[in-house]
Amino acid sequence: MDEFSFIRSIKPDHYRQSSLIKGIDDDAAVFRPSGHDVVTAVDTMVEGVHFTRQTMEPEQIGYRVLAANISDLAAMGSTPAFYLVSITIPSDWTHGELERVYDGMKKLGNTYQMDLIGGDTVSGSELSLTVTVIGMVGKGKARYRSAAEAGDVLFVTGTLGDSRAGLEWLLNPKGQASKDHTYLIQRHQTPVPRVSFAANLSHLERLALNDVSDGVANEANEMAGASNVDLYIDLKALPFSEPIRNVFPEDYVDWGLSGGEDFELLGSVSEKDWPHVLKAAEQAGVTVSRIGHVKTKEGPEPVVRVNKSGEWERLTSSGYTHMKEKGD
Amino acid sequence: MDEFSFIRSIKPDHYRQSSLIKGIDDDAAVFRPSGHDVVTAVDTMVEGVHFTRQTMEPEQIGYRVLAANISDLAAMGSTPAFYLVSITIPSDWTHGELERVYDGMKKLGNTYQMDLIGGDTVSGSELSLTVTVIGMVGKGKARYRSAAEAGDVLFVTGTLGDSRAGLEWLLNPKGQASKDHTYLIQRHQTPVPRVSFAANLSHLERLALNDVSDGVANEANEMAGASNVDLYIDLKALPFSEPIRNVFPEDYVDWGLSGGEDFELLGSVSEKDWPHVLKAAEQAGVTVSRIGHVKTKEGPEPVVRVNKSGEWERLTSSGYTHMKEKGD
Repeated sequence: MDEFSFIRSIKPDHYRQSSLIKGIDDDAAVFRPSGHDVVTAVDTMVEGVHFTRQTMEPEQIGYRVLAANISDLAAMGSTPAFYLVSITIPSDWTHGELERVYDGMKKLGNTYQMDLIGGDTVSGSELSLTVTVIGMVGKGKARYRSAAEAGDVLFVTGTLGDSRAGLEWLLNPKGQASKDHTYLIQRHQTPVPRVSFAANLSHLERLALNDVSDGVANEANEMAGASNVDLYIDLKALPFSEPIRNVFPEDYVDWGLSGGEDFELLGSVSEKDWPHVLKAAEQAGVTVSRIGHVKTKEGPEPVVRVNKSGEWERLTSSGYTHMKEKGD
Repeated sequence: MDEFSFIRSIKPDHYRQSSLIKGIDDDAAVFRPSGHDVVTAVDTMVEGVHFTRQTMEPEQIGYRVLAANISDLAAMGSTPAFYLVSITIPSDWTHGELERVYDGMKKLGNTYQMDLIGGDTVSGSELSLTVTVIGMVGKGKARYRSAAEAGDVLFVTGTLGDSRAGLEWLLNPKGQASKDHTYLIQRHQTPVPRVSFAANLSHLERLALNDVSDGVANEANEMAGASNVDLYIDLKALPFSEPIRNVFPEDYVDWGLSGGEDFELLGSVSEKDWPHVLKAAEQAGVTVSRIGHVKTKEGPEPVVRVNKSGEWERLTSSGYTHMKEKGD
């Protein structure tokens, strides 16, 4: 493949962000944040590890790696602005297939008026995509997982476990995919980052947010640790879709806790601001569920507890619950 | 390998940049550019393509991928501030070796007070490092390759071809390495980005810069194209080190033109500002050579010409010269 002709084919023909000064025509890109704080994150997806040709179409690979990154920007309360893409290309991917990967990113990027402003193209033995995203947020308005306080309402957007369930079906399909399966597969392949929801809450004084990329058990423990508080989650309040309940009745709770990659947002907010959260979700067209509350740390370490069959049990990062940890 | 313990081992224990608000403890990093323009670039190095265990020690791999990126920041006239590292880890690399890769980046990053503010750690079949760098530059002071004008002096820092020569020796060593070989190897493994030199020129009104990462022939053609001018390069004025002349007398001119990865800077500046360039180089402790001049575009397309045996011949991006192109 001719690297230069490939680069020409993926180069944007125009840019949308007014803060951009120089796109991909020089040694580096240049932008002017004009009084905003800048938010940045990076994510890599590797063929055979994060996806296969069996689980994703080329467009979906591009879409998903950018979506994962945008979800991080949403969890910081920031507005997506730019992305840079480094791609490692093996010999068994055609120019046409690779363009489809970029089309998938472009389609999602367009939703947020994002500009592709840089990248690198190298050869290697496995397809790998590394995307760096850059977002803007009002000065001092970034949302941290360390902002939870005792007395807060704990909430989560959307439903949990669907992406894990969709992947399960793609890897082990049993017969014809029903409407339920199709829903779960689509949740795995093209998750929607919760950018609007987080943006609708920009007026709140205080809000803790964390994106659910490794299961709610892991993210809740991160929030507890960063905020130095205990979190209490009511298992029965965790939101699950009808399709996951129908198709995987045995597994859905575990997958919600530790399945990961739902790209929903876990949040913590004061009781008085809870109505604003409900309104922000309604305006953004997503559901939001009150799943628990925040308390002052009781023991030496911050912990997460779940209410399972009437008793509060400890929930570790991996989703494991210690039955009857009385002395904990 | 335990991913979490590895991440803990590479996490910085403190940050230096005053503009940093949030490092690697959340979904994304946050910084406040405070009136500066922001410059960003990304580079990937893959084992077996850009390096092997034969050509580089783990520290040098880390050093070099960050150096390549910093060179891009230097070529924009910006000050390095942050970097993010995405690493793909195959099973045959040990925790200890990987830490050495990060140590190599850290050592170079420390030179510029850079902070590691994010990253991703995934598994894969070949070691791959993708580094995103972020730099700051005064508003409107970024240096573009499009800024060359007719009448300018064309210059280049340091010496050319050394990195290519060092690689050649590493791949095909012939006997014991002499002092000359050691010099060339070190130029390949640990090139020094020209940050101070570019920073010393921040007071100039106009300056075109381009980093020499694919050979001076390619970069000169990029500058000619972006600036819409013709460049004239005097072959005899191209700077070569004594070691490359001694060890590779047959090859050094070709490698200087198209060897690449020297991470020197190609620049274009008005005749009146040329003394400032000399002074900036002296202060930064690097050499700088006047290698040619810039003229108004003569033909339909901007071109680069080299003076070879008394005649001006066209130099293409790949370093090829068309002998006696009279009608060109």
